[in-house]
Amino acid sequence: MPADPAAGVTTARATLAEVAERAGVSISTVSKVLNGRSGVSQGTRTKIEALLSDHRYNPRNPGPNHAPLIEVLCYEIDSWWSSEALASIERVARRRGVGVVVSGTSDRQQPDAGWIEGVLSRRPVGAVLVSSNLQATQLQQLRSRNIPFVMLGPTGDVPPEVPTIGSADWSGAYAAARHLIELGHREIAIVTGPGDMMAATARLSGFRAALDAAGLELRKEHLRRAEFHHVDGIEQGRRLLTLEHRPTAVFAASDVLALGVYEAARAMGVAIPSQLSVVGFDDVRVAQWAGPALTTVRVPIAEMAAQAVELVLGVRGGGLDTTRIDMATTLVLRESTAPPGT
Amino acid sequence: MPADPAAGVTTARATLAEVAERAGVSISTVSKVLNGRSGVSQGTRTKIEALLSDHRYNPRNPGPNHAPLIEVLCYEIDSWWSSEALASIERVARRRGVGVVVSGTSDRQQPDAGWIEGVLSRRPVGAVLVSSNLQATQLQQLRSRNIPFVMLGPTGDVPPEVPTIGSADWSGAYAAARHLIELGHREIAIVTGPGDMMAATARLSGFRAALDAAGLELRKEHLRRAEFHHVDGIEQGRRLLTLEHRPTAVFAASDVLALGVYEAARAMGVAIPSQLSVVGFDDVRVAQWAGPALTTVRVPIAEMAAQAVELVLGVRGGGLDTTRIDMATTLVLRESTAPPGT
Repeated sequence: MPADPAAGVTTARATLAEVAERAGVSISTVSKVLNGRSGVSQGTRTKIEALLSDHRYNPRNPGPNHAPLIEVLCYEIDSWWSSEALASIERVARRRGVGVVVSGTSDRQQPDAGWIEGVLSRRPVGAVLVSSNLQATQLQQLRSRNIPFVMLGPTGDVPPEVPTIGSADWSGAYAAARHLIELGHREIAIVTGPGDMMAATARLSGFRAALDAAGLELRKEHLRRAEFHHVDGIEQGRRLLTLEHRPTAVFAASDVLALGVYEAARAMGVAIPSQLSVVGFDDVRVAQWAGPALTTVRVPIAEMAAQAVELVLGVRGGGLDTTRIDMATTLVLRESTAPPGT
Repeated sequence: MPADPAAGVTTARATLAEVAERAGVSISTVSKVLNGRSGVSQGTRTKIEALLSDHRYNPRNPGPNHAPLIEVLCYEIDSWWSSEALASIERVARRRGVGVVVSGTSDRQQPDAGWIEGVLSRRPVGAVLVSSNLQATQLQQLRSRNIPFVMLGPTGDVPPEVPTIGSADWSGAYAAARHLIELGHREIAIVTGPGDMMAATARLSGFRAALDAAGLELRKEHLRRAEFHHVDGIEQGRRLLTLEHRPTAVFAASDVLALGVYEAARAMGVAIPSQLSVVGFDDVRVAQWAGPALTTVRVPIAEMAAQAVELVLGVRGGGLDTTRIDMATTLVLRESTAPPGT
């Protein structure tokens, strides 16, 4: 396990008493910090956190110290992506007899104040971060309590030692663009996600690579960045459709964005696919119900979520290897793409 | 509080020791049953449950015996309705410093085996049942542990003493039908939910009442029952559109069903709204993104969910009054309805 920085450490792990002694506080004070309880000054708390982290405190008997709970931190619980992931997480956890605590966050890069204290006090067996990220200190707090975690799905810049389960974004986008090129499209636009999300950047990159391979240019005004929200899809779709060099096809880096482009096209009387081809990404359930049914890149959301749960539940008592799993994506052909001008 | 059958009981509440004595077992055995732990025979468990229920066992000091958690039992976590409700529940609970444990169920009428034990062992402050129901014994188990609960959203037949938060289904459906009638439709069909769901029955009833008031007949073949699933909407839509007396308008008792009818219409080349008007129910987020945007009856899902949380959190330490709140529904006019044959 050379990828786990902890694996090679040979110094003995500290007991609660040793941490207390080094910090010059009582065992009960260390316990309070460990379990996210109040009544400890910020200075003492910081000192104890540092000792817990340096000495990789490890309870002698990790079993009884953890509740049969898994924590799920989720950016936008009711997004299609998150709700499908959450349903799968819950199914797998239920089968394993583990409860699921769900917390939302309004900031993709860090949870609300109070989240980490809640987690520490609940002492879960693991955590899954759905399209969300933690600050370095919070990651360290989970590590020092032996709470394994994994990031699932599109997130920002992920520290190298954090395990992730994602999708093959680059190759999925490449396949989407190649499909449009093979249909004869030459003016192909992309609406992708924010620049601080690796998944969005990888999708843009795969898209570009396919255009390059075909000797096609990506016009500057055909590259649009947006949040992964429906309204952004409408807005960017409208902009693209009012350009002088109007694209004949749009690759949207999420189904939500694609359906926003649908709405823009509908409002402007542009028919899909005869006047505009659209390809999405994710294959959330609604993609097949759209009018016309959306051609998209399938991300195996439920399988990824199941894998995330199995991963954190499988490593109780030890460190989690640095795992990067990118699950395969597949292009699903439906009715939203056709040769240009048909 | 005359509506609460417990409120008038004047006998003293039993302590743990008293229950143990009456059952002829140790206090630790009663404690095991109370907290959903194993190691107690079924016979003893049943006996203790009965005593807990008869004597309305009440911990002397309910505070420390409950974890800052709320349990959410949810039928189809990733349905649009449930995911919007869940997001709202989580937001309100987070603001109140309470964690949310989510469990799915594959049966609307009762949770999977193991759910109640999990709940009892976690000792939550309350429970919200989203589109799901419990068996009488499970309701009793929650009551005897002082865990207040409320049912939220469409469910089956609800015992009279169970508090619910629902929507004004009858009047919403009445408004939907009246809108279609006012547009000039005379052949109006309905696709409603299963007969064992009160919400579906109330929506059918409101629809019928509006037709009656206008002197219109509901053809037998224009009344379709289905699960609240997209595939059922497609199936029922297809059947309606192949009838000799084809309806010019369809009222679907949920948006999911309405979008299934959309799909059936699209597949058969029937244009909405010029050849077929469609009205949905719920106003889940996707309703406004459908093509054309769906005219529907708005159910204030997020507000209902918030109310459910406030209700169970507001009654710690006491019994929950029998509360039936039906929140107002409003017709939202969009682009899926028009006069017939336009």
